Amino acid sequence: MISMAGGLPASSLLPVDLIRTSCASLADHRELFQYGASRGYSPLIATLNKLYPEQNNPWLICNGSQQGLDLIARAFLNPGDGVVAEIPAYLGALQVFQLSVAQIYPLYHINENGESESQPDLIQLESHFKTGKVKLFYAVPDFHNPTGRVWAEDTRIRVSNLCRLYGVMLIEDSPYRELRFSGEQRSSLTALYPEGCISLKSFSKTGFPGVRLGAMSGPAEFIAIAERIKQATDLHTGLPQQALINALLNHPKYPDHLAHLRNSYKSRHQQLRSELIKQLGNQIQFERVEGGMFIWLKLTSASGTNVAARALEQKLAVVPGAAFYPEGVIAEDNAIRLNFSNTDPSLIPEAVSRLARSFCSLS
Amino acid sequence: MISMAGGLPASSLLPVDLIRTSCASLADHRELFQYGASRGYSPLIATLNKLYPEQNNPWLICNGSQQGLDLIARAFLNPGDGVVAEIPAYLGALQVFQLSVAQIYPLYHINENGESESQPDLIQLESHFKTGKVKLFYAVPDFHNPTGRVWAEDTRIRVSNLCRLYGVMLIEDSPYRELRFSGEQRSSLTALYPEGCISLKSFSKTGFPGVRLGAMSGPAEFIAIAERIKQATDLHTGLPQQALINALLNHPKYPDHLAHLRNSYKSRHQQLRSELIKQLGNQIQFERVEGGMFIWLKLTSASGTNVAARALEQKLAVVPGAAFYPEGVIAEDNAIRLNFSNTDPSLIPEAVSRLARSFCSLS
Repeated sequence: MISMAGGLPASSLLPVDLIRTSCASLADHRELFQYGASRGYSPLIATLNKLYPEQNNPWLICNGSQQGLDLIARAFLNPGDGVVAEIPAYLGALQVFQLSVAQIYPLYHINENGESESQPDLIQLESHFKTGKVKLFYAVPDFHNPTGRVWAEDTRIRVSNLCRLYGVMLIEDSPYRELRFSGEQRSSLTALYPEGCISLKSFSKTGFPGVRLGAMSGPAEFIAIAERIKQATDLHTGLPQQALINALLNHPKYPDHLAHLRNSYKSRHQQLRSELIKQLGNQIQFERVEGGMFIWLKLTSASGTNVAARALEQKLAVVPGAAFYPEGVIAEDNAIRLNFSNTDPSLIPEAVSRLARSFCSLS
Repeated sequence: MISMAGGLPASSLLPVDLIRTSCASLADHRELFQYGASRGYSPLIATLNKLYPEQNNPWLICNGSQQGLDLIARAFLNPGDGVVAEIPAYLGALQVFQLSVAQIYPLYHINENGESESQPDLIQLESHFKTGKVKLFYAVPDFHNPTGRVWAEDTRIRVSNLCRLYGVMLIEDSPYRELRFSGEQRSSLTALYPEGCISLKSFSKTGFPGVRLGAMSGPAEFIAIAERIKQATDLHTGLPQQALINALLNHPKYPDHLAHLRNSYKSRHQQLRSELIKQLGNQIQFERVEGGMFIWLKLTSASGTNVAARALEQKLAVVPGAAFYPEGVIAEDNAIRLNFSNTDPSLIPEAVSRLARSFCSLS
């Protein structure tokens, strides 16, 4: 079986060598094994302040950015509250909002004037805000999961202004932001709307998903509420794992690791892109991505669900696009999501051959 | 400042030496740094099955037993559902139930016939159950926090039968169970009521609180629901920390560590007990405890809140008993909780002198 289904980083590129020494000395730091503070391990917080100087708000360390999302939902959503989410959307976020019995307001992307990038439909966004029921806008502006899309600079400014105007809290979930392998980095939403934006950082895509560590930052009064829930939920995030991530982020070779990761993903993406064009030609359409882990493959005349099912028979796992739609929203069944970060480059031609055979076996 | 306020294990007794080698080899196990299963790390689950043969139900690994409680509350409680809790109670549990907007039904302990042990009032318990509104009974039958009490064998059987009769889910929270330093171990509730009991295990009192690792087990259908919430909440508990706790539990010297911990706490308890009798005499009353971390000190004629405030002026931190009552329940202000596990034995006489001075300064 070849899997292009998950959102896993490449196992062979996990930077375990950069924390080897820190692992070995963990047991010398007895204080890491006693209870700690709910807010987080202060040396790690100091590192985050150094790494993200644009973020002037306080931090709360969590068990992956997934827990950050859950804390936000529990802190700020009452049943029936509205949450805008770009559709298709990250399933893990939708699950959290559904646990809070929130009402999802779907936001679609449009492609005006045949430009290269689709952008969120801001007229639709404002009409959602005008209902007066929207409390949060959940956004993944950099290399969105599943579509790989990036918001234009102008979109970022206009969204921030709309959120400010309507008093909507903006959640900037950016696990892939540091995986940009071409093009220019754009402004973070938190820099544009510091008084109403909560930013979620993940170390699962650039560091170690298995450690489950992320961080959130936002206006002090928001973070204080989330911290109280965090304390009731699990007291605090474990200290040895915070110390390991802190060691990784401070390692002199961490920037080299990031550069190597970006180059590797750029090359995997390019290879997958070439094979798709070569082997599937006009059966598919897709936008060029500049980072992240995914290609969103539009199928010109096949069902994503059918292709994914046939691919499994060919021993290739992919996720049908319809899986990324919340309950109650009509799913488009004309896409599949392909992950390129976790597939060994030597397997990419064979993976695409299996995908091509899945298309053939449909007719 | 001397603190007898928290529920911390002795820092000097944390078994860091038993995991030194495992820490050093963490980085050789690349698979621990990739995403894992929501249910938990299978070698750790295999260890739990070996350590707790009485537990035939499946396990779910969580970020401390605190997260287990939170998952139970989120999985099974709707706003207004009833939860019976022994009063006074562990604050962290009350916070979780309050987040779920549950209704707390207080259960008091009574002392029939002047016996040495107070026991939960089972007539009151059944009258709560008869309302038909109670979904969960949250119980700490071994070395209860804050009172240090242990349920008699007969109480365990009768409570299990009542829960079975009224279809109430029983939560057995037993972080202190393995800290018995005298007397005989009693039956676990889960052994008496396997079809309706969820058992919470903690490695914070016998292992490392800073790692934040616990486990819950219960009927398969309950655990499956809790696992879905766990997945939405934070995907899974970190793997390196599961591997470290697994190494600790399997270390050939772990039983010796437990024995040493119990002996040390027995001696600290005995020393605190002697000093209290010597220095405070008839100003206090307290039951002898056979394990755990706390003495519940009843004050014959002083207010717990006042004594705790005066103790702070003497640089001694203790928690007033009134802090262990949920909102809406009238708090008795005639007790303080003293922790004996985290206080260095050499400081115990001085700590009690400060406490005695706090009493004097009241008059």
